[in-house]
Amino acid sequence: MEYRHLGRTGLKVSALSYGAWVTMSYQVQAVKQAAELLAACRDAGCNFFDNAEVYAKGDAEILMGKAIKELGWKRSDLVLTTKIFWGGEGPNDIGLSRKHVIEGTKASLRRMGVDYVDVLFAHRPDPNTPIEETVRAFNHCIDHGWAFYWGTSEWSAEQINEAWAVADRLDLIGPSCEQPQYNLFERTKVEREFVPLYDSRGLGLTTWSPLASGVLTGKYSGGDVPAGSRFTVENYAGLRDRWLTEKKHQLEGVDRLVPIASELGCSLAQLALAWCLRNERVSTVITGATSAAQVRENFRALEVAPKLTPELLARIDAAIGDAAAPAADQ
Amino acid sequence: MEYRHLGRTGLKVSALSYGAWVTMSYQVQAVKQAAELLAACRDAGCNFFDNAEVYAKGDAEILMGKAIKELGWKRSDLVLTTKIFWGGEGPNDIGLSRKHVIEGTKASLRRMGVDYVDVLFAHRPDPNTPIEETVRAFNHCIDHGWAFYWGTSEWSAEQINEAWAVADRLDLIGPSCEQPQYNLFERTKVEREFVPLYDSRGLGLTTWSPLASGVLTGKYSGGDVPAGSRFTVENYAGLRDRWLTEKKHQLEGVDRLVPIASELGCSLAQLALAWCLRNERVSTVITGATSAAQVRENFRALEVAPKLTPELLARIDAAIGDAAAPAADQ
Amino acid sequence: MEYRHLGRTGLKVSALSYGAWVTMSYQVQAVKQAAELLAACRDAGCNFFDNAEVYAKGDAEILMGKAIKELGWKRSDLVLTTKIFWGGEGPNDIGLSRKHVIEGTKASLRRMGVDYVDVLFAHRPDPNTPIEETVRAFNHCIDHGWAFYWGTSEWSAEQINEAWAVADRLDLIGPSCEQPQYNLFERTKVEREFVPLYDSRGLGLTTWSPLASGVLTGKYSGGDVPAGSRFTVENYAGLRDRWLTEKKHQLEGVDRLVPIASELGCSLAQLALAWCLRNERVSTVITGATSAAQVRENFRALEVAPKLTPELLARIDAAIGDAAAPAADQ
Amino acid sequence: MEYRHLGRTGLKVSALSYGAWVTMSYQVQAVKQAAELLAACRDAGCNFFDNAEVYAKGDAEILMGKAIKELGWKRSDLVLTTKIFWGGEGPNDIGLSRKHVIEGTKASLRRMGVDYVDVLFAHRPDPNTPIEETVRAFNHCIDHGWAFYWGTSEWSAEQINEAWAVADRLDLIGPSCEQPQYNLFERTKVEREFVPLYDSRGLGLTTWSPLASGVLTGKYSGGDVPAGSRFTVENYAGLRDRWLTEKKHQLEGVDRLVPIASELGCSLAQLALAWCLRNERVSTVITGATSAAQVRENFRALEVAPKLTPELLARIDAAIGDAAAPAADQ
Repeated sequence: MEYRHLGRTGLKVSALSYGAWVTMSYQVQAVKQAAELLAACRDAGCNFFDNAEVYAKGDAEILMGKAIKELGWKRSDLVLTTKIFWGGEGPNDIGLSRKHVIEGTKASLRRMGVDYVDVLFAHRPDPNTPIEETVRAFNHCIDHGWAFYWGTSEWSAEQINEAWAVADRLDLIGPSCEQPQYNLFERTKVEREFVPLYDSRGLGLTTWSPLASGVLTGKYSGGDVPAGSRFTVENYAGLRDRWLTEKKHQLEGVDRLVPIASELGCSLAQLALAWCLRNERVSTVITGATSAAQVRENFRALEVAPKLTPELLARIDAAIGDAAAPAADQ
Repeated sequence: MEYRHLGRTGLKVSALSYGAWVTMSYQVQAVKQAAELLAACRDAGCNFFDNAEVYAKGDAEILMGKAIKELGWKRSDLVLTTKIFWGGEGPNDIGLSRKHVIEGTKASLRRMGVDYVDVLFAHRPDPNTPIEETVRAFNHCIDHGWAFYWGTSEWSAEQINEAWAVADRLDLIGPSCEQPQYNLFERTKVEREFVPLYDSRGLGLTTWSPLASGVLTGKYSGGDVPAGSRFTVENYAGLRDRWLTEKKHQLEGVDRLVPIASELGCSLAQLALAWCLRNERVSTVITGATSAAQVRENFRALEVAPKLTPELLARIDAAIGDAAAPAADQ
Repeated sequence: MEYRHLGRTGLKVSALSYGAWVTMSYQVQAVKQAAELLAACRDAGCNFFDNAEVYAKGDAEILMGKAIKELGWKRSDLVLTTKIFWGGEGPNDIGLSRKHVIEGTKASLRRMGVDYVDVLFAHRPDPNTPIEETVRAFNHCIDHGWAFYWGTSEWSAEQINEAWAVADRLDLIGPSCEQPQYNLFERTKVEREFVPLYDSRGLGLTTWSPLASGVLTGKYSGGDVPAGSRFTVENYAGLRDRWLTEKKHQLEGVDRLVPIASELGCSLAQLALAWCLRNERVSTVITGATSAAQVRENFRALEVAPKLTPELLARIDAAIGDAAAPAADQ
Repeated sequence: MEYRHLGRTGLKVSALSYGAWVTMSYQVQAVKQAAELLAACRDAGCNFFDNAEVYAKGDAEILMGKAIKELGWKRSDLVLTTKIFWGGEGPNDIGLSRKHVIEGTKASLRRMGVDYVDVLFAHRPDPNTPIEETVRAFNHCIDHGWAFYWGTSEWSAEQINEAWAVADRLDLIGPSCEQPQYNLFERTKVEREFVPLYDSRGLGLTTWSPLASGVLTGKYSGGDVPAGSRFTVENYAGLRDRWLTEKKHQLEGVDRLVPIASELGCSLAQLALAWCLRNERVSTVITGATSAAQVRENFRALEVAPKLTPELLARIDAAIGDAAAPAADQ
């Protein structure tokens, strides 16, 4: 496994990591099965595990926590995260108020059965809470030992800069990293918007959706929805419908990648993951998997990444073509 | 229920809320009865519960704490407050010294059986304690996790500004809200004095006495004191006497509101509450009640508030007439 | 009892208070006896109890703690202090290093059986520790809830100003009070040196030795050492010898006060205590006593203080004469 | 024993101290044996005990902790340290990230069975972690009461200055001391590079390797490796080989010290230790020992130090000659 610093921090994260998002609790339910999956991650040297209070309404945290305990995994060998924003149905269960950041964090830690996460994320920006209140709340969590670092997810560069301005003014700790969507179709934030932040703030990236909800695996090519795939999970029906209609031309772009993957002797998924990995600004590429076998499959992308020469990258861009353009111009 | 932000904070409070002041422990004594009352609040979507160390000398906190426990209410669904100033008879039981703010807060939490309140109030200004000592003490409570926000009650705009100046100088958290008296007769603070603070500091308001000690219900019209009403409680004899003598012309103003309430198909009390609600600077209107039925009655004011057109508000002002003038000119 | 603010803080202390210094554990040993003594204080409204880690090598704290527990005294009704400087024989048991301030404070709290003192004193200046280290250490104790305020004892005005300069620079809490010796013979610090600090820093005073080691009671007049008096305690032999030789002319000054006390219908001790009380800069005059009867005797000085007219004060000054001069010129 | 301040702090450390480095757990394994060794230190007045998470992979901390408990040593009589940098094999077990500083410190305290160390060291500089992250992390440990002071080991003057610049900017506590190698051969850092820091930052020194890995005892003279000496421990084979080959001319320098030691009536080791002690910038000279007898031998250097006149020091310099030159010119 390759380890990278989380942006400019001293924390080292595996370049490929595992996220609980869709899989934990919806597709993987038994502790034993989850433990097998995480054991495959561990065997591959993966140390970064992404979670959120909203994933399966907290059940993803519970399941991951139990699986880690089952494996007897040493806490300091793990980099655990969670994200706070959607904690429930009540008026104060959502957003980044001091109340919800603190209550949400404590509830997440209880569910995971740990004393602290390594990185605590603001899962979305909250325009209804002053940024100062949120920055103070995340620092409160760090001061109390519930997290070592904090980050943002799907914030704009401007919002991240505002958070840093508050942190600077109050001598507090600013966000170390951002968790944006990043894949062959979604490139604008990582490759344009955040660029100044890499140097000015040492921003790290923990990117999600490297396979564009599975579309970059090629399994939906032609509009098929394979039985057991994520698009058959009822909670993700909206996602499925959007892909199969509006974004049809992106599925066509995927088809054009097939010969390149063949040439490299890898799967489309491995090619898509390797493409994310080749960006050195990315601290870790968060992957999903429902089985140990799939983890091993995904992690072979590490061998593909070094093969992505500038010439190959140009061919990949050409293959994707204007399927990525809308994203790049956002 | 309508939820509003507590001033500029991320905290959301129900526009109508419940205060323990006169009722808890003096008029409502059994845990079962209190739980029924709070259940009616919960059913109506009310999430904000106001208390103070001085209410029934701590018994209001004990009773409310037990009732909440009885209902199995999830802590994060509640916005609990208490107010510190009068904690007992001793020389250090009163005021806003660091000693009393910290000792008083810890004692309140113990009585309520909770780890923290959401908002901790300075129940009055304390001219004998430097504002810096008080601001530091409230921040100490926030740092230790005993409160998320702090506010003031019956402070002047100048005192609130002084607190903010100290907070700014020391990078501490300033008061998020003020709890003033506000009703058809008492308007000066909310509508004049505090106006600059809404923008400069994002001051929120948790207003009390919306019915002017029950006078705006019309039940004392003509000087009657109904059996079982608050004015028969011995501890409030002074309040009663003041109303029935000096403020007789205000009772007459109330009589002039009767036709407007009739027209709206609501009670005088509902009209008075709706009148407070129509001010968007008000975060929450704290109401009292001694029964679940009264809670339901009060909360119907939410349906009245949207009906208060500018024309109707003008008629209300005319009806109250100079009964409000002394307050407005204070 | 009269209560005064501790300097500019919000803390209220009884104008006459009780110090454990010589008496607790050397002259009063049984918990029952100590409890009777403290009960007499409580009955008189005394709320301030002074202690130090060095008094009877910690036994004074243990004894006072047990006596308070015996009386079932409510913690918030008490203003407890201790002083840190001499905690033992080891190289790090002495002074104001971060190590000793923190270790010493924790040990004192354990001995007294309380979670916090109200005021934590630096018992002497420590020229071998940077003032910044000491100011940070006392603030650490306040942050951790082990004290509400901190003060100094026998520091110079310059040293107090240095501590405040550090506190100002680092946004920390400065010393609220100083504990100097103050009596008819020792006046320079309180009446000259500290004068600018009363306004600039709101410095409070908790003065000790109001009877000049018992000399102002008149009991040593003519050079007698009464059986059972403090001067027969072996540990204080040096003190006794100094008084009985060098300071003989001060004993003569005491004799000249006798007619004034007679005129006021009070004892010499009461006159001396009243003289301290009449200085409004003094927050509390710390007294010693070995019995409940002596406590009651001492506390009658509160009735004498209002009788000290400017004319009487002038006569007192004349009577003391040059016995005070050396002190005043120091 | 002579006690010195740790740089400009108020902490007092014995001029000669004991380090667990090679000996604890590799050469001394039984708790009983370790306790005897530490008892010899205690009898000699030694109060400073140096350790590190890396020493014997944590076993040195366990052994020292048990031995201290065995002796019933009062915590406040001890000055314990540990050093954080190499905590294990994992990617986050090494360096000075916030994660490792905090996790490493908590693990060390658990192993030693204490609530805090007195001084917490950054065992090496970590160029991969921003100095601000490290300074904040050490201050976090101090705020939480896990250490009173923090220091560095084998940092450059520039790195120490950078740490202080961050501490100054954020009002945090900077490193109080540095732990460099210092002996007759290694003088540059202490005598040149750090010189400005003694005044500007009050930097203290806790120096290690006073006997240059035993070479200054003369026992390796002529290239012999005595049975049972450190050079026979397999883990230190590299060290041995370097000395016996490249640094042969230093062994010759040692031979030229023999007559001076004879003249002073002391061993070569005592001379070498005394030479370190004579530098008043050194707060404590950390020594190693595998037996109580060796501790007593070492500590006799305290009697030799006062005999090192300027003339004798010049003769020592001449004897060492260019054996020290490479170090001095580094």
